[in-house]
Amino acid sequence: MAENAPPAEGAAAPSKNALKKAQKEAEKAAKKAAAKEREMAERLKQQGADAANDVSKDDYGELPMIGSVPYTPSGQQRVKFTELKEQDEPVAFRCTVINARSQSAKLAFLNLRQGDETIQAVVAASEKLSRQMVKFAGSVNAQSIVLVHGLVRGVKEPIKSATLKNLEVHIQKLYIISKAEPQLPLQVEDAERPLPEEGTTAEEEAAKEGERPRVALATRLDNRVLDLRASHNRAIFRIKSGICALYAEYMQSKGFTQIQTPKLLGAASEGGSNVFECTYFDRKAYLAQSPQLYKQMLIAGGFERVFEVGPVFRAENSNTARHLTEFTGLDMEMAFEEDYHEVVDLIVEMLLFIFKGLRERYSKETDIVREWASGGKNTIEDFKLPEDGKVPIIPFKEGVKMLREAGEELGDYEDLSTPQEKLLGKLVLEKYGSDFYVLDQFPLAVRPFYTMPSPHDPQLSNSYDMFMRGQEIMSGAQRVHDPTLLTQRCKSMDPPVNPDGPGLKDYVDGFRYGCPPHAGGGFGLERIVSFWAGVGNVRLASLFPRDPQRILP
Amino acid sequence: MAENAPPAEGAAAPSKNALKKAQKEAEKAAKKAAAKEREMAERLKQQGADAANDVSKDDYGELPMIGSVPYTPSGQQRVKFTELKEQDEPVAFRCTVINARSQSAKLAFLNLRQGDETIQAVVAASEKLSRQMVKFAGSVNAQSIVLVHGLVRGVKEPIKSATLKNLEVHIQKLYIISKAEPQLPLQVEDAERPLPEEGTTAEEEAAKEGERPRVALATRLDNRVLDLRASHNRAIFRIKSGICALYAEYMQSKGFTQIQTPKLLGAASEGGSNVFECTYFDRKAYLAQSPQLYKQMLIAGGFERVFEVGPVFRAENSNTARHLTEFTGLDMEMAFEEDYHEVVDLIVEMLLFIFKGLRERYSKETDIVREWASGGKNTIEDFKLPEDGKVPIIPFKEGVKMLREAGEELGDYEDLSTPQEKLLGKLVLEKYGSDFYVLDQFPLAVRPFYTMPSPHDPQLSNSYDMFMRGQEIMSGAQRVHDPTLLTQRCKSMDPPVNPDGPGLKDYVDGFRYGCPPHAGGGFGLERIVSFWAGVGNVRLASLFPRDPQRILP
Repeated sequence: MAENAPPAEGAAAPSKNALKKAQKEAEKAAKKAAAKEREMAERLKQQGADAANDVSKDDYGELPMIGSVPYTPSGQQRVKFTELKEQDEPVAFRCTVINARSQSAKLAFLNLRQGDETIQAVVAASEKLSRQMVKFAGSVNAQSIVLVHGLVRGVKEPIKSATLKNLEVHIQKLYIISKAEPQLPLQVEDAERPLPEEGTTAEEEAAKEGERPRVALATRLDNRVLDLRASHNRAIFRIKSGICALYAEYMQSKGFTQIQTPKLLGAASEGGSNVFECTYFDRKAYLAQSPQLYKQMLIAGGFERVFEVGPVFRAENSNTARHLTEFTGLDMEMAFEEDYHEVVDLIVEMLLFIFKGLRERYSKETDIVREWASGGKNTIEDFKLPEDGKVPIIPFKEGVKMLREAGEELGDYEDLSTPQEKLLGKLVLEKYGSDFYVLDQFPLAVRPFYTMPSPHDPQLSNSYDMFMRGQEIMSGAQRVHDPTLLTQRCKSMDPPVNPDGPGLKDYVDGFRYGCPPHAGGGFGLERIVSFWAGVGNVRLASLFPRDPQRILP
Repeated sequence: MAENAPPAEGAAAPSKNALKKAQKEAEKAAKKAAAKEREMAERLKQQGADAANDVSKDDYGELPMIGSVPYTPSGQQRVKFTELKEQDEPVAFRCTVINARSQSAKLAFLNLRQGDETIQAVVAASEKLSRQMVKFAGSVNAQSIVLVHGLVRGVKEPIKSATLKNLEVHIQKLYIISKAEPQLPLQVEDAERPLPEEGTTAEEEAAKEGERPRVALATRLDNRVLDLRASHNRAIFRIKSGICALYAEYMQSKGFTQIQTPKLLGAASEGGSNVFECTYFDRKAYLAQSPQLYKQMLIAGGFERVFEVGPVFRAENSNTARHLTEFTGLDMEMAFEEDYHEVVDLIVEMLLFIFKGLRERYSKETDIVREWASGGKNTIEDFKLPEDGKVPIIPFKEGVKMLREAGEELGDYEDLSTPQEKLLGKLVLEKYGSDFYVLDQFPLAVRPFYTMPSPHDPQLSNSYDMFMRGQEIMSGAQRVHDPTLLTQRCKSMDPPVNPDGPGLKDYVDGFRYGCPPHAGGGFGLERIVSFWAGVGNVRLASLFPRDPQRILP
């Protein structure tokens, strides 16, 4: 990016005439800009009560709205906080005011933020810097965006309140780019404090002595723009972005094609109960509950390996800490040669790649989030992976046995309850030293119609779930690639699925044209983020979460 | 990926008891597998009419469904066509049968495909290979998936019909993994032939002498699984996947965070007419027409640079070659310092990065698609970029002037018609030698309420469109980051937009908390793909396109 972008007209390869014209226009623009600058200086002047006596009158005030007035770029390169060092040349930068306070008529302090870094700034009255300017600086509203010109100096005592502890900025010029209102509905500092402890009411919070009440999740989400400015939120969404990048990187390296399957469907093909219905011109449409049928149709269509990152919609009235009505699905599907464990192995390797990548590239962010989530106590354990790299792949039967030995009562072919999943997670962690494991060969009865039955036991299936900290992050299986068996499976469901219906016919027919055996799975991205970072609620891993009660902002 | 995956139980670090148990289970499984193998051999035997006399009886036939019977991995690594070379050791591979034919009772030929490569295979009767097997091989249905064991040999005459012209496979074993039905609704060879010429009816196509009728787009899309097997389709979607990867790579390298904004909205915030309505539990919801308001709220939320790849929904009843009701949006938004052209420059650089990446990494795919799209004539011109790398950024006023000089009549502040856009594309190509250009400073009246007015002319705006081959691929602008001006803009629209409504209030409020000046834009991914490759209809760049008439498959 060019910091000093040429005027738009100059970017093209111009003809002679165009050049002449451009010159004329540039002259005109320069005249206009000069006029505007005079106007701006005038405006700034008027802001001081005794502007006439103000030696700093041009060095502070509110800037005209950037982009809405003709403007000549200053030519001074703006710097990032991460680049700051003690130096004699003044620097310029844009940043957010965390807070501003006048210590005296001659001295004001500001805390400034840019990205994850914060620095202290001083405005001291002198022959060259007026008391009016000090007063202005001390009263800038928190969260305003400002343009600062100043000198970077070392400090004698490290500054505790800033991340850049050994530097401070001696402000020479201070302009407000965008002014925040004096009263904000949520203080960013409050958002940076932990959530209320579970079960604490707002009244109990307010009654707490010696500390400000903690902000409930709903209040944060209602004021998400301010909430997102809290440092743990920047960290959460950088981790989320990082997982997307790592996922795509791994899948591309293994020859997968990134796909986009339709989210608007002509029929509720995966089963009718948990689907959102839309009006589509003069007919009905339905929002995709997963890319399942489409990614399989692509395998039938000759795409050997596909992956998708896209929204998934579930009209499920589940008001839990781990359900969203809209989440980001990381889906994949892959033809295999002899055994679906070829696919399981690849998915496990992919997740290890992501976890390793998070450790290497996002350890700072992970620490920030975990510290916040544990209320500054940093009690969230690191995410454990087996030392020998062998991720436990535990047959469902074996899982049931482990749970029974731990005192649970459950049938051979029953699905696990959420508490049982969490207990099994603990047992696996004790036995194998891993927070990540695979449960394999699930009972057929608890899986969807397209799941391949197990060759070992007709009541089991070639399906698997993957878990982080005892919580499910993905579900997958070998799929039935034979139209006859698939039709049988459809009809044997309760309630039966119609393989000839508008949503399924094309899908089932795809397997009549020759289709390799294949398996795949789908992850909930928000779950991976929240279980990795150890935040208790999946809503915290969604920028603007959707649940049965919430669809705004 | 391990080709020979260990049994699932073996992948965990096992205790002693578990080991014993695993051994017992392995023995049991081995016994079962042996029994199954005998059964399988039996099955294969029964397939030949005179199986008793068939020396090849175990070397061909239909395999049991992979995954549905206990199976011991063969241990023979399967190879890719791209790895094939003349060698003495037999190889094994999975592939698709393009076609099979018996030349005589002793000799059959098959054309085989794997990915983009095709090879010829021979089945010749000998002491070790029965005539029954030759007969079987010659009658395999086209599009079936098969497992081949054979020897790779050089040929004297290059084989015209195959991409691997200098090799052929002498088949030793041939098993059907997944059988295609003998009658397919669409022949893949026909899908590989070009679309009918514009305006040709099905009757006219059928009446053509000397060639098979060409397949209409609707027929292809109705049978998309088979259509997608055509080589140009694999190429189109590899290019599309490649653009996603290049886009993410560039944006990440510039410090952008990948985001996911909600697609289910509580209010039709961008304007009511072109929005799909859904039922959301006991209320209404609306599908996002773009991530516009959310990506701006993230800028206000302290995310300096964000990008998104996600579906965009438009309930627009436009039945043209360049409109879809659901497409993939490549969106971005970025805070800038002094001038929105900083953002324009970055976007232009990003597109040049993509175009360069396509040339370097996807030239083969581009050639395949262009050859197909021009009916084998390869008349689609290469996508031209300016030799000096300076992409024309043309003020709208200048564009109007160029059009007027070319004989068009239009007002100073009118939007361009589609034919005018195409004409301007030609004029720009002639003048600047570039198929890619930017039109800058659009009339304010034709842009949305959140567009920043121009500092140079109140009837213009800080907005831009980008064009490929004279067709719009993106729209962008500096946004109003001041709540007062934004409210004014809302109210001045026709019909007026309500800045206090449920969909807009949070958005407008975001700018009351301090927000840097910012600009951004959104691309239609399918348009970039189709204009790059030169295919005439944007539907061809969507796996399962959605338009007002089509929502299935």
